[in-house]
Amino acid sequence: MQSGFGMLEMGSAAKGHEVMIMLKNVYDVVFGALAYYAFGFGISWGSPSNSFMGLGRYFLDITSDDYQNTGVVFSSFIFQFSFAATSTTIVSGCVAMRCRFEVYCLYSFYAVLVYAFVAHWVWASNGWLAQLGVHDFAGSGPVHLLGAASGLNAILWLGPRRGRFDGTVPREHFKPSSPENILFGLFMLWWGWIGFNCGSSFGITGLRWIVATRAGVTTICSTAGGGSLALVYTKIKNRGKRLNAEEVANGILGSLVAITATCACVHPPEARAGLVDLDIGF
Amino acid sequence: MQSGFGMLEMGSAAKGHEVMIMLKNVYDVVFGALAYYAFGFGISWGSPSNSFMGLGRYFLDITSDDYQNTGVVFSSFIFQFSFAATSTTIVSGCVAMRCRFEVYCLYSFYAVLVYAFVAHWVWASNGWLAQLGVHDFAGSGPVHLLGAASGLNAILWLGPRRGRFDGTVPREHFKPSSPENILFGLFMLWWGWIGFNCGSSFGITGLRWIVATRAGVTTICSTAGGGSLALVYTKIKNRGKRLNAEEVANGILGSLVAITATCACVHPPEARAGLVDLDIGF
Amino acid sequence: MQSGFGMLEMGSAAKGHEVMIMLKNVYDVVFGALAYYAFGFGISWGSPSNSFMGLGRYFLDITSDDYQNTGVVFSSFIFQFSFAATSTTIVSGCVAMRCRFEVYCLYSFYAVLVYAFVAHWVWASNGWLAQLGVHDFAGSGPVHLLGAASGLNAILWLGPRRGRFDGTVPREHFKPSSPENILFGLFMLWWGWIGFNCGSSFGITGLRWIVATRAGVTTICSTAGGGSLALVYTKIKNRGKRLNAEEVANGILGSLVAITATCACVHPPEARAGLVDLDIGF
Repeated sequence: MQSGFGMLEMGSAAKGHEVMIMLKNVYDVVFGALAYYAFGFGISWGSPSNSFMGLGRYFLDITSDDYQNTGVVFSSFIFQFSFAATSTTIVSGCVAMRCRFEVYCLYSFYAVLVYAFVAHWVWASNGWLAQLGVHDFAGSGPVHLLGAASGLNAILWLGPRRGRFDGTVPREHFKPSSPENILFGLFMLWWGWIGFNCGSSFGITGLRWIVATRAGVTTICSTAGGGSLALVYTKIKNRGKRLNAEEVANGILGSLVAITATCACVHPPEARAGLVDLDIGF
Repeated sequence: MQSGFGMLEMGSAAKGHEVMIMLKNVYDVVFGALAYYAFGFGISWGSPSNSFMGLGRYFLDITSDDYQNTGVVFSSFIFQFSFAATSTTIVSGCVAMRCRFEVYCLYSFYAVLVYAFVAHWVWASNGWLAQLGVHDFAGSGPVHLLGAASGLNAILWLGPRRGRFDGTVPREHFKPSSPENILFGLFMLWWGWIGFNCGSSFGITGLRWIVATRAGVTTICSTAGGGSLALVYTKIKNRGKRLNAEEVANGILGSLVAITATCACVHPPEARAGLVDLDIGF
Repeated sequence: MQSGFGMLEMGSAAKGHEVMIMLKNVYDVVFGALAYYAFGFGISWGSPSNSFMGLGRYFLDITSDDYQNTGVVFSSFIFQFSFAATSTTIVSGCVAMRCRFEVYCLYSFYAVLVYAFVAHWVWASNGWLAQLGVHDFAGSGPVHLLGAASGLNAILWLGPRRGRFDGTVPREHFKPSSPENILFGLFMLWWGWIGFNCGSSFGITGLRWIVATRAGVTTICSTAGGGSLALVYTKIKNRGKRLNAEEVANGILGSLVAITATCACVHPPEARAGLVDLDIGF
């Protein structure tokens, strides 16, 4: 998914900015991994913990009296880290072409820490949002909403790209460099996302594999809807003349974001007995 | 595999057509998913069913008296949908550069329905071809032969691209835009295909994992043969001067198509005791 | 991983050489598969065997008296072949732009045979290096060190590219054609590698899944270190002015190579009880 996202951003950026955007995505993972290893995992999933944050497992500390948890801790680190890296990467698209590389590196480190708190609130059994009954299957809140809020914040702070709206730089300079790359990135993200939502059932034991397959089905159906609507939208907007690859990609990605939280709860129309999942705590 | 296929087609298309081809591949999946969800899955795998088509499970209908099948239905929907989408996507390569986008969308919807009937005939236990003893492990018939037949049909109907053979447009206008993309797409398809053939054992329970591994081995060996022959062919055709990336890609893809139906039955020369699979119903 | 590696090499090569490099990667797999099927697997994993080489299972021969091993032999063929192909592909980068295609094909076949001997020495239970106590979890020795040694050998034999150092060809002719492709290839390799190291536990049965997760964690942490150091290096070398995509990619890939042998033994600082793996023979 990181590859697909990098490709999509690279294609959307104006000519001359592609390499810098890919480098930002690379250091997103690098500094995200450092931050998540050192503090993030402990904040989200450490034990002991209170409703606000975890207090253990910093630096993946596994003491000798709980070594039998090694496998569980390590596997959840790998899976949870992929969430954390996704969350920070969202902002790289927002600040593309208008943020210094060094500042972005600092941000990557910092954003993982912010993410870690919110993930604890929503997903840890004693997080305060979880206690209030919040249900988020695969991360619409801690991943997508948080990423989008950070991105909006960054945009408001940085202001528009120089010359973008005051007419001093011709509009062609801001055109996406490669619609082909946008669509290729879309494909990689799309299939990755289906796997991501399926994988969020945290296993295939017991009845969980049913939840995983339902998440896959609703994700596929959701993008069918998002893609159809994007087609209608781009046709009307461009008066039936041409399709805009960006608008299509955004329609499909929007539907993927929208289904992420609920992909295991909603059911395809008519698949009524899908309600079985209520029995297994999802 | 959709990503790889899109990349390969994009690289094969003449300059200026790349974005439209990727968009066709995107809507292939979108309208294919709609059609498969609404009708295709029911036609192929619905119950009750007769030897011609299934009569239930339209719109993934799971009634409350068979809710215990939810997981099986959902997981087979995801897997079978990937077959259906592959089948329709084959035609997008055939009609590249000479079909209106709107017509292609209609086709995507329609092609999935056609596919659904053939898949029922071959793979459902009471399909009439299955009853006659047809064996197709991973879809050479319903996927590749059907896709190729649709494509041939479409080509005959549409005729050649304007100026392709009457000399009014210079030949350079029809040259593939990017042999690099062809070969990169080939790689993605290749490895995806090995996984696809392995996965067609529908599970790794019991002796099925042996069938899965055999499918992987024969697929690898098959492409070794296809690639070697393609090298000899392109060398002779071009008089030893240069290699043609398209011809190499077609040789390897041809060998992948050829092994798909039988990848679980044939055995590598000398791996005689591979005959064990006859005992487990494949 | 082959896709990622091809992409990375393609981006690193000078303009005009991209297609030939991808073709070399394609025939790497084709002739590698032929060689590994015919001789390589037998040399590495055949039985009976002595400390120098295996003496059976050439051409994947499974005789009727050991047909119950079919699944094990076939699955290890698929997994081991991916190692063998990786090993030979390393050299394609070393000899890029200065080796005839036909010679490279011969090399691919030959290199797999060389690899097969070394793999037997290190990984077969009676290989002489294994008997001496060599431990190599995921192939730093037989894959990366052997590939690098072959590559160095080839470089010394071939000499530098014409005009590279004598000033007869302008330096721009040797510039990487596409830093974007280098970074995109890096992403594909990176995530593939994490999976590769995890998968090298040869299964998730018993306590092996713990080893697999540990390999994933150490691989992620290792690249965080490699990436950070590469950033410092490229900043100092270029006097803080610009980042060099190649140097960043090499830093991260170097850290991946470095962790490959030991990814299941070392533990993240503080994860002390990770020592549990000593109990399960790794």
